[in-house]
Formats: sequence, C-alpha cells, structure tokens
Amino acid sequence: MDLAGLIGLIGAIGMIIGAMIYGGGLAPFVDIPSVLIVFGGTAFAVLATTSIPAFTGSFKAMARMFKPTNLRTDDLVKRMIELSGVARKDGMMALEGQSVPDKFFEKGLQMLVDGADEAKLTRQLKQEIKAMKSRHEGHQGIVKAWIDIGPAMGMIGTLIGLVLMLGNMSDVKAIGPAMAVALLTTMYGAIVANVLFGPIYTKMQSRTTEELEYRAIVLEGLRGIARGESPRLIEDQLLAALEPPVQEKLRAAA
Amino acid sequence: MDLAGLIGLIGAIGMIIGAMIYGGGLAPFVDIPSVLIVFGGTAFAVLATTSIPAFTGSFKAMARMFKPTNLRTDDLVKRMIELSGVARKDGMMALEGQSVPDKFFEKGLQMLVDGADEAKLTRQLKQEIKAMKSRHEGHQGIVKAWIDIGPAMGMIGTLIGLVLMLGNMSDVKAIGPAMAVALLTTMYGAIVANVLFGPIYTKMQSRTTEELEYRAIVLEGLRGIARGESPRLIEDQLLAALEPPVQEKLRAAA
Amino acid sequence: MDLAGLIGLIGAIGMIIGAMIYGGGLAPFVDIPSVLIVFGGTAFAVLATTSIPAFTGSFKAMARMFKPTNLRTDDLVKRMIELSGVARKDGMMALEGQSVPDKFFEKGLQMLVDGADEAKLTRQLKQEIKAMKSRHEGHQGIVKAWIDIGPAMGMIGTLIGLVLMLGNMSDVKAIGPAMAVALLTTMYGAIVANVLFGPIYTKMQSRTTEELEYRAIVLEGLRGIARGESPRLIEDQLLAALEPPVQEKLRAAA
Amino acid sequence: MDLAGLIGLIGAIGMIIGAMIYGGGLAPFVDIPSVLIVFGGTAFAVLATTSIPAFTGSFKAMARMFKPTNLRTDDLVKRMIELSGVARKDGMMALEGQSVPDKFFEKGLQMLVDGADEAKLTRQLKQEIKAMKSRHEGHQGIVKAWIDIGPAMGMIGTLIGLVLMLGNMSDVKAIGPAMAVALLTTMYGAIVANVLFGPIYTKMQSRTTEELEYRAIVLEGLRGIARGESPRLIEDQLLAALEPPVQEKLRAAA
Amino acid sequence: MDLAGLIGLIGAIGMIIGAMIYGGGLAPFVDIPSVLIVFGGTAFAVLATTSIPAFTGSFKAMARMFKPTNLRTDDLVKRMIELSGVARKDGMMALEGQSVPDKFFEKGLQMLVDGADEAKLTRQLKQEIKAMKSRHEGHQGIVKAWIDIGPAMGMIGTLIGLVLMLGNMSDVKAIGPAMAVALLTTMYGAIVANVLFGPIYTKMQSRTTEELEYRAIVLEGLRGIARGESPRLIEDQLLAALEPPVQEKLRAAA
Repeated sequence: MDLAGLIGLIGAIGMIIGAMIYGGGLAPFVDIPSVLIVFGGTAFAVLATTSIPAFTGSFKAMARMFKPTNLRTDDLVKRMIELSGVARKDGMMALEGQSVPDKFFEKGLQMLVDGADEAKLTRQLKQEIKAMKSRHEGHQGIVKAWIDIGPAMGMIGTLIGLVLMLGNMSDVKAIGPAMAVALLTTMYGAIVANVLFGPIYTKMQSRTTEELEYRAIVLEGLRGIARGESPRLIEDQLLAALEPPVQEKLRAAA
Repeated sequence: MDLAGLIGLIGAIGMIIGAMIYGGGLAPFVDIPSVLIVFGGTAFAVLATTSIPAFTGSFKAMARMFKPTNLRTDDLVKRMIELSGVARKDGMMALEGQSVPDKFFEKGLQMLVDGADEAKLTRQLKQEIKAMKSRHEGHQGIVKAWIDIGPAMGMIGTLIGLVLMLGNMSDVKAIGPAMAVALLTTMYGAIVANVLFGPIYTKMQSRTTEELEYRAIVLEGLRGIARGESPRLIEDQLLAALEPPVQEKLRAAA
Repeated sequence: MDLAGLIGLIGAIGMIIGAMIYGGGLAPFVDIPSVLIVFGGTAFAVLATTSIPAFTGSFKAMARMFKPTNLRTDDLVKRMIELSGVARKDGMMALEGQSVPDKFFEKGLQMLVDGADEAKLTRQLKQEIKAMKSRHEGHQGIVKAWIDIGPAMGMIGTLIGLVLMLGNMSDVKAIGPAMAVALLTTMYGAIVANVLFGPIYTKMQSRTTEELEYRAIVLEGLRGIARGESPRLIEDQLLAALEPPVQEKLRAAA
Repeated sequence: MDLAGLIGLIGAIGMIIGAMIYGGGLAPFVDIPSVLIVFGGTAFAVLATTSIPAFTGSFKAMARMFKPTNLRTDDLVKRMIELSGVARKDGMMALEGQSVPDKFFEKGLQMLVDGADEAKLTRQLKQEIKAMKSRHEGHQGIVKAWIDIGPAMGMIGTLIGLVLMLGNMSDVKAIGPAMAVALLTTMYGAIVANVLFGPIYTKMQSRTTEELEYRAIVLEGLRGIARGESPRLIEDQLLAALEPPVQEKLRAAA
Repeated sequence: MDLAGLIGLIGAIGMIIGAMIYGGGLAPFVDIPSVLIVFGGTAFAVLATTSIPAFTGSFKAMARMFKPTNLRTDDLVKRMIELSGVARKDGMMALEGQSVPDKFFEKGLQMLVDGADEAKLTRQLKQEIKAMKSRHEGHQGIVKAWIDIGPAMGMIGTLIGLVLMLGNMSDVKAIGPAMAVALLTTMYGAIVANVLFGPIYTKMQSRTTEELEYRAIVLEGLRGIARGESPRLIEDQLLAALEPPVQEKLRAAA
C-alpha cells in the first residue's frame, strides 16, 4: 500500500471538507448539476482526446499509483552481482531459472540463456524500454487532459451560472446564493486539477523516471554479464548509480 | 467510426447544453453578434496565420480525427514476419504484389522489389516520415491557433460589451442583462478552446505519435528484410515494440 | 499578394469593429491617451529590448508576411532534377548561367560551377541556412516582444484608470464611464497581442519552417549533383519530401 | 551560513509583515482555518505526489540551501594542478591520502590510486554525476509541487469562503469581513509559492548547476592526470572554466 | 551609448507617467509603503535566490545593457581574413602583437603564437565560450527572478490592502481610496516585470546570442588559421555567417 499517496489524498481532501464543515456544513458545497458539468463534462471531453480502451486503461494506471512500487534498486544491484558471479563461474546456462525481482530482468536473463550477444540484448531491451516509456506517456497524457480540461469546464459552468443570474436580477435576495452556486463549478474544477489528478500525474511521472533508472541498471548489468566482465567491475559500475549511504552499506556487505 | 471522439464531443457539449436548459433554457446563451465575433473573428485571425489551402485543408485533417485509425501494430508485425519469411525463401521478387495494410508499407516493399539496398530504403523512408510529420505539424499548428485565439476573441468581445454597458448605466435594470451578454463571448471562447478544438488537438498529437511509432516498426522490419535477416530475428525485434500481453499472444500464435 | 493574411487581418478587425458599431458606434472605443499608452508604451518597451536598426528592420520583415512566398517546392524539385541531368551530361560547367528559382539555389549552383566539392558546399550552405535562421529568429523575437508587452501595458493602463476612478468617487455618475475608459487599454492590449501581432508571429514561424524545408531540399539536391549521382536517384530522394499527390503528379510528368 | 538566503527570506517576510502592521496590525491577517487549508492541504497534496521518505528528505535538502556551499572552483583548480604535478613526478601511488576539498574528488582520486584507467574513471564518475543530478531533481520536484499546489489551495480556500459568504448575505455588515477572511487563503498561497518555496527552488536549481560545473572540472582534471598529461596542459584547460579575473590571479600565483 | 535601450526605457516610463499626469497628477500613484513592499520585498526575495556577490554583480550586468555592444561581425571577418594572410605568409609568429577587436580573439591568437594546435585551441576556446555562457545565464537568472517575483509581490500587496479595506468598511467614503491604494502594488509589480526588467532580460538574452555567434566566427577563423587554410577559403566560410548585403560589400572590398 502506497502510504504517501493515500495519506496525502485523504489528508488534502480532509482539509478541504474540514474547512467547509467548519464554515457551516457541506450542504452549500454540493450541487448536482455542477458536479455533472465538471466531472461529467470533463470526462467526456477527456474521452474525446483518446480512445475507449485507452480511457478505461488510464484508470487502471492511476489506481496502480496507490500500490507501492516493488522496484528496489539495492536488491537489484545485489542480485545482479550474484548472478554475474554465477555466469562467470558456471556459464550463461547456469542463469536459467534463477529467480529475479522483476519481469524485465527475467526477460533479459532469458535472452542471455538463449545465447543472445550484447548487441542483440541491448537492441531488444532498449526497444522494450522505449515501448514502456511510450505506454506510460500515453496514460500520463490522459491524466494531463483531466488537469487541463477540468478547470476550463469549471469556468464554463461558472459563466453559465453568472449569465443566468445576471439575466434575472429582479429578486435581489437570490443574487448571492445564485452566485455561490455559480462559483461551485470553478471550485470543483480546481479540485479536479490540483487535488485529485495533479498529484497522481506528478507521481506517474516520477514513477516512470524511477522505472527508467531501474531498467537502465538492469540493462547495464546484463550487458556487463554478456561481455563476460568480472563481478567486481560490474559491482563498481552499478553501485555508482545508488545513493552514497546505500553504496557504503552494500559494499560493506559484499 | 471513432466512437470515443463522437461520444466524447457529443457528451461534453450535451453536459453544457444540459446545464443551460436545466438553468432556464438555451435562449439566454445565444447571441448572434457574440457568436460572430468569437467564431468569425477567430476564424479570420486563424486564417491570417496561414494560407487559404492550408486553412481549408486543416478542416479535412480535423474531420479525419472522427474516423477510426486503421493502424494496427499487431497485424503489421504479423504481416511483416510473414513477408520476411517469403523474402528469405523466394527472394525479394516474391514480395511483388503482396497485400500490405497501408501505403507506407507498400511503398517500402516496392522499393525492396525494385532492388533498393538498406541505405537507400532507410534514407527515403525516413524522408517520407519527416515529410509526414511536418505535414501533421502544419495542421496541428492551425488547430492550436484556434485554441490560442478563441479565448482572446472571447475576452475582446466581453470587453466591448463591458465598455458599452459601463458607458450607459442610466437604466439600472439593463445592467444585469447587458453584462450577461458581455460574458457570453468569454464562454464561447472557453468552449472553442477546451471543448471543440482542444480534444481534437490532443488527439491529432497522439495520432501522429502512433503513426510515427507504426512507421518506425515498418522501417525496422523492412530494414531487417533488406539485410536478409532471419524471420525469427525480425520477430524478436518487432515484438519488443508491442505491449507485453500482445507479445504473448502473437508469440503463442507463431 | 498573400490573400490569407489580408483577408484574415481585415476580417478579424472587421468583426471587432462590426461588434462595436452594432453595439452603439465606435466613439466609446476610441480614447487617445489609451491608444498612446498601449501602442506608444509598447513600442518604446519593445525598442528597449533591441537596437534601432533591428526595430525598424522588424517592420519590414512583418510587411513581407503580406506578400506571398515565392518558394514552390514542386518547381524546385523539377528544376533540380533537370539540372542534375545537365550536370551529369555536360559537366558542372554547363550549370553556369542556368536560371534557378531563388538566390540560395543560385549561390549553391555557382559554388558547383566554381568547383566546390560536396564537403565545402555543405559547410558553406549550412552556414548560410544557420545565418538565415538566426536572422529570422531575431525578427520573431521583436514581434514576440509586442505580444508579451502589449497586454501588460494594457493592464498598466487599466490600473492607472482604476486608481484615478477609485480615488475620486464623489460623482457616482462618472464611475461607469471612467471604468469603461479604464478597460479600453486592456482591450487594446488584447488586440495588439492576438489580432495584430499574434497571427503575424505564427506566420513568420511557419514561413521560416517552410524556408528551412525548402533550403534542405536545395542542399540535398546540390549535394547529389556534387556527388555525381544519377538524376533518377536524386529524383527519388527529393520527391519523398513532397506531399503524396504532388509526388504522383511529378512522377507522372517525368 | 548562507547570508543571502537568510537576509533575503527574513527581509521579504519582514516587508510583508511590515506592510500588515503599518496597515493596522497582524490580527486581520491571521486565520487558523485558512492557515490549515493552505499549509496543511498543500502539504498533504505534495505528500501524495511522492513517498514519505522523499517528502521528509526534501526538507533536509531545503534546509541545506541555508548553509553556504563549500564548492570553491578556484581552490579546486589550484589543488588539481598540484596533484597533477605529484602524480607526474611520483606516480599515481603518491596520490594516496592526499587531502582534497570534497568527497567526489576523493573518490576519483582513490580510483586513480587503485589503478583505474581513464575509461573506467570516466564511466564511473559520470554515473555518480548522473545519480547526483537525479537525486537533486527528485528534491526539486517536491519543492516545485509546493509552488504549484500552494496557490491552487489558496484559491480553493477563497472559493469556499466566497460560497459561504454569498449564501448568507442577510447581515450586510458581515460581508466585508467574511470576504477579507476568504481572501486570506489566496494571500497565503501566493506567499507559499513566491516567498517561501520559490526562492529556495531557484537556489536549488542554481546550486545543482554549480555542482555539475564543479564536478565537470574535477572529472576533466582527473582524466588529464589519468592520461598522464603535463600539469601545464591541465592548468591551461582547467583555468578556462573560471571567470577571467580569477584566471589572471591563479595564473599569476602559479 | 545604447540609444535604443535609453530611448525605449525613458519613452515607456514617459508614456506611463504621462498617462498618470494627464489623468490627474502623479500624487495618487505614489504610496511609499506600496513602493517598499514591491521593490523592497522583491529585492529581498530575489536576493534569497542567489548569493550576495551574484546579486550585486547582476546590477553591473544590467547596466552593461545600456552601453552599446562593441562586437562588429563585419570588422571581425575583415580582420580575421587579414590575419590569415599574415599567418600564411609569415608564419604564426607574425601574429604576435597584432591588434584585434576583442579579448577573446586576442587570447586565441596568443594561443596560436604559443604553438597550440587546432585541437587544443578548439578545446580551450570552447571551454571559455561555455564558461561565458554560464556566467551570462547566471545574471539572466537573477533578472528573471525580478520578473517572476515582482508581480507576485504586487499581488500580495494588493491582497493585504484589500483585506484591510474589507475588514473596515464602516466609512463608505474611504472604500474607494483604500482600494485605489491597494491596486498600486499590482501596478508597480506589472511595471517592474514588464517595463523595467523585462526588456533588459530580453536584451541580455539576445546579446548573449550575438556574442555566441561572434565567438563562433572567431573560433571558426582561428581554426582555419591553425589548419593553415588559404585566406580565400577562410573568407568564403566566414562571409557566409553575415547578412547577404554585408557579404556583398566585404567581397567587393576584398
């Protein structure tokens, strides 16, 4: 469970709802037509930017942001060094069936077992990385559309409310409440963009960066094994990608 | 028929019109001079950024966004692997007249039949890809101009309305309705930018990305054939560009 | 005459003036001090960003946007293929005095006649292209300054008007008209940025892109001639830069 | 102690508090629920963009901005030239235990002592530099999130306040104060983005640039030593990275 | 004296002050606390983004923008061609003590006299160019901070004023003037960003571009001399970097 995402999202929404309740209850802040135009209208407009499978797929990609990532660079480096020792001692065949922490690593290892040389390994794993990046960017593009269109829908909703209110100002007492309702869509739009989808978008981007860095280490290590380099050399090279204190720890453990 | 585009656009406009009708009917939201200044003024200003053929051509390019794209990467990969087998077994001549899923593929295949080597094939197909990208960017530039200029025209319209209203405030009762009308152009501008042209622009961009990725696979495959690589090697390389589950499926089918 | 530019600019300004007249005549929209602060103030601030010759030169560059561009890629490709035939048959010397559609082409051709090899030709023409691009970017920078500073001056003008109005609210009847006048500068600023200079800026950018593409074809073709390639090969390569239908037409004509 | 950071931050906050006190005291500017929604809400939303250790780590990274940087390029160049002399005269082994101004330099020196050649040294130090840059960008991303989300939370807070106020306008006297309170969150948001986190973000970016430049010099010098270049040549090359007056001074001292 | 900068700045400020005087005198536009919060507050916040020496150094860099630049590319090209003739005829030694238009040129020439080959010359001059660019970007970063923070401080000032005014609306007559004063800081902020620092920033950027182009020509020419190329070849190459009419003139003069 990604604690930060859950605590953050619940906390931020909690602060907003808390401020509403403190100010007089939630009732003045809920207006079904406003909810429809902002959430529904944005959803439709976002759908129009993409295809139906990509649209539904983006929700799965977002949900994944609330699960913790299982990419641990230190475990990866440790395992890679062990495997480079195995390959050096017993040959590539000995890599068959070795447990590795993720699918990308497994695929590369299988290629080594199948006899791929460094050039082929590199070309194919780089292709995988590129395809992964392009898939992630597709999901991020849809989340970005929510962030861009949400506030615009909020503003359109507010303008609709203002036009209605201004066109009918005979009842002076109704002006205030009408304008309050008109402003709700702007508020919903700001929440959609900055509290709901904004943090998810940022997290998606940094997760992609993390995964790219992780896979770069996998590729680096596998290339070293393919070249038949000594485990010591591979260790030196891979450790440099970790934070200084983690480097110390792993070096001490080695 | 691109369902997502149609449903999305109709749905988003439906939410907006629904909110208007719910609030009191469409009448207060229609004002012909406002429509003219936002849609007409923006159209003219967009025209000024480009040439007449490019301007009219951009509408065709936008209309194409509502047709489904016929680029299926999995079919492409399957067909490419088959053809690489044909070329390997019966020579390049046997590629003549083979059916392929799109014109770009066809052109490259014809070049192979005509005896082009890898260097010539690559140079010419890359030129085609570059020209395609530049054509698409031309269309996108015009759609972007609608998105940039629309809200500005809306704001100019609102300022015209406000100046007229403020200059003549003797009739207090007319102030509200006059301001309502003044705000309409801002609303139209927001709709032009965010509901009409915004999603189309995003879709154009992602379609271009898709087509570039598709053509990169075609080029990759044809280069493999030109180099006389084994179908197995080409398959390995091309599959890496697909999503993992699609890879599994195709590999299983092979 | 660049019809699109003229029609677009006149049309967009026409829509705005039309909306003003429809609303009650032009008089409320003209205020000399407001014109001075927005147009004069912006002109001075733009001048401060650059030098006097560059400032005056930028107007010439903008005026050029209303002339049609004389760069026709299809004529260029046709002529280049003819000349490659001449060079192949009668040697570089035969290129002397051949008519070509533009100065850049002429210069490159003269270099070939003078005996430049491919490396020298490429280095020098690339230098020319770079210098052209940098000249264009200089002009565009000044137009961009109008677009950036215009609305800011409009806002400063409106703030001056508001401060004056708010400081003296004894005459309630004067408040409306004073605020109307204050808003005029914001409106002028929006027109400066979005109707006058905006479309010109976009057009300048796409013209530069066009000219870069045109010159890339010239360079490509001249390099082919310098390498002594066959006209057929040059044709294949150059045609790939054109739109598919134009390609067909030229290929059919050949 | 980084004087500029402290003076700047205290001074800017001082000007703001001064203006408040001058205008009538701090009391009207303090509202606990507003503080909670802007600072608390933003903190939670920022947390959601990242992980708990990264979130807490970012505060340490920010605090470091108030300590002076200990990277002095002139000392570095002087020391590097001395060490290149030592290495040239007494061999790499003589570099063991030499004092150097920072850890990155020390690590590179140790590699030379351990017998690394230029290629290995370069590959590993570049890896370290890349990892450092990516760590810094991680911290900066979190500070950027404060800058982006702070004003949005301020706006949401103001909208909540306005909706409450507009929904209950029976007591005309309460309107002014209610709106005053509503505006506080917008003000807090602007302060969070522009006075508290904005300058820190800019400083983080320029510190990273500085450190990258510093490390590039270290790498350049160590590569020169690894290649066995003369101290004179290394001096020429390294000095060029310094400001002209510092160059003169060091050259004179040499 | 850089006329454009002076005329532009004085003219733009003149238009603004003129509009104020025309509207009723300067008095309503001067408010010392507002001046303090915008200019003082921004200065402090900008200081916090950098170090004290960089902060004070940036003012010198800005002042330099009002001096005309002494970089004349045509003189440079002329002189470089002369010197290439001297080097060709009398050897590198003859370049000693030759007068050149700037320090960078002089340094490169001295390197040639000292016997540097093309590779060393290029590496060291490129290092100088990089260091110059990074110094300029440092200054520009500080000017950019003024442009970013100025309007934010203006907005904070206006919010402070509005909160004070709204909290105390018992004296209806005081509302207008209080709001007028509140708006002053927004106006100051817009002037800081768009009239004072904006044009200087743009000018700094284009001056850097100019200097980079100038130095690229110096480097190009000196490399030609180092390679012992003929003055004619160097001339051809360098002239291509100038505007067409200047090329004609210099070629005619040669």
